[in-house]
Amino acid sequence: MEAALGAIAGQRRLELDMAQNVYDNPDFFAGYSQLPRQVQGLDGAPEWPAVRALLPDLAGKRVADLGCGFGWASRWFRDQGAVSVLGVDLSQNMITRARADTDDSSIEYRIADLETLDLPEAAFDLVYSALTFHYIRDFERLVSMIASALVSDGDLVFTIEHPIFMAAAHPDWISDKEGRKTWPVNGYSVEGERRTDWFTKGVLKYHRTLATTINGLIRAGFELRRMEEFAPTPDQLIEMPFLAEELERPMMLLVSARKN
Amino acid sequence: MEAALGAIAGQRRLELDMAQNVYDNPDFFAGYSQLPRQVQGLDGAPEWPAVRALLPDLAGKRVADLGCGFGWASRWFRDQGAVSVLGVDLSQNMITRARADTDDSSIEYRIADLETLDLPEAAFDLVYSALTFHYIRDFERLVSMIASALVSDGDLVFTIEHPIFMAAAHPDWISDKEGRKTWPVNGYSVEGERRTDWFTKGVLKYHRTLATTINGLIRAGFELRRMEEFAPTPDQLIEMPFLAEELERPMMLLVSARKN
Repeated sequence: MEAALGAIAGQRRLELDMAQNVYDNPDFFAGYSQLPRQVQGLDGAPEWPAVRALLPDLAGKRVADLGCGFGWASRWFRDQGAVSVLGVDLSQNMITRARADTDDSSIEYRIADLETLDLPEAAFDLVYSALTFHYIRDFERLVSMIASALVSDGDLVFTIEHPIFMAAAHPDWISDKEGRKTWPVNGYSVEGERRTDWFTKGVLKYHRTLATTINGLIRAGFELRRMEEFAPTPDQLIEMPFLAEELERPMMLLVSARKN
Repeated sequence: MEAALGAIAGQRRLELDMAQNVYDNPDFFAGYSQLPRQVQGLDGAPEWPAVRALLPDLAGKRVADLGCGFGWASRWFRDQGAVSVLGVDLSQNMITRARADTDDSSIEYRIADLETLDLPEAAFDLVYSALTFHYIRDFERLVSMIASALVSDGDLVFTIEHPIFMAAAHPDWISDKEGRKTWPVNGYSVEGERRTDWFTKGVLKYHRTLATTINGLIRAGFELRRMEEFAPTPDQLIEMPFLAEELERPMMLLVSARKN
């Protein structure tokens, strides 16, 4: 009975997923395209220096960029010496723009859903993904597929929204009793769907605890090499004082893992 | 100049540490001794089944129990077949009671400060610590010492207060706009001293981000094997409904790591 209910709930979630290609929603896409990181590329993302520090040397590497968006990182990997890059994204809007912005036959862009994507075995030296996996319902399937797509000693480097940032029913700043900017956490251990308004109503994400994410990697055969909970550097705070609030709670988790 | 100020601040912190043997404060000790986990031992700690699942087979093992308190775990390790256990605690009260409650010449109890403790090299198969490391200022020194005290493939299993639990200036329940129990997070990326009132005023703890703790282990030569952010099981919620609030935010982090 519970299994049957679970299957129905799973089916319902799957249907929601298919409908939830939010990046091809015109309102969402119009707002999203104006984000500094979409206009300026990697340098518009304050976490980029920290992400870059997690990346291996790229010379000669075959890279998959899962959730490649406009292809900013895919092109950067090639600039750093990668021999080939496969950029994958669910959004036709994103891939169309990525193709238009790229003049390099060693970069291939593909429209595909990471919930069902299968990559060839041992075909990549690095799998990279920026701020995408929190949209994925079945993380276990995905990391297992990534592990098989990587060569031995291949690297997985990814960023996601931090579970501290995602957990609460109403994830928005509140004040503590002294008026300090404070982030609410509730429902942390209750994993699953979270819906928030971001350029459009009810954007669907999947909350997982940090332990679930890390243990999932280890179970799939990865060794954790480093993690970061992005916070601005002192230099970044001088240049971009609005980043100070990022010291109060981490918005992003950055992970570097190696296939055993 | 900054280095000099840093050294002075360090010295000041060190003096505070020495004064901060809170477990020998009579008010604190009187309250603390009445906690279920002190009266009933391991079974009084709801996270114990999860901790136990992280522990290796104990038969024939040499164990160090850092922050051993009354010696509940030290005695349990012997019951499970450990050949020797060294229990270490800063508190004379705790060690006196541990010795009185133990009739086993293979368990040695020692009063020592984990900030300066040195254990012999490659002398232990398992280092265990429960809810102690968040009192330690110099985690890097401690894990490096533990790494050298363990044999190759030796295990480190420990629990600490979760950084989500510890970060905020006022770590106590608040309500979200729908009245839901909510945990405040601020200052997450600002590591260092936290003072809270717990049986006595101004108990001193050291907040570190999750990334600092995990990366510190990896840097010291450990491979992360598993982590848990303790949440009650459905059975525990039926038996102990008051644990429901633990689903809202994790109070404890449980870590299992192996020396490479």
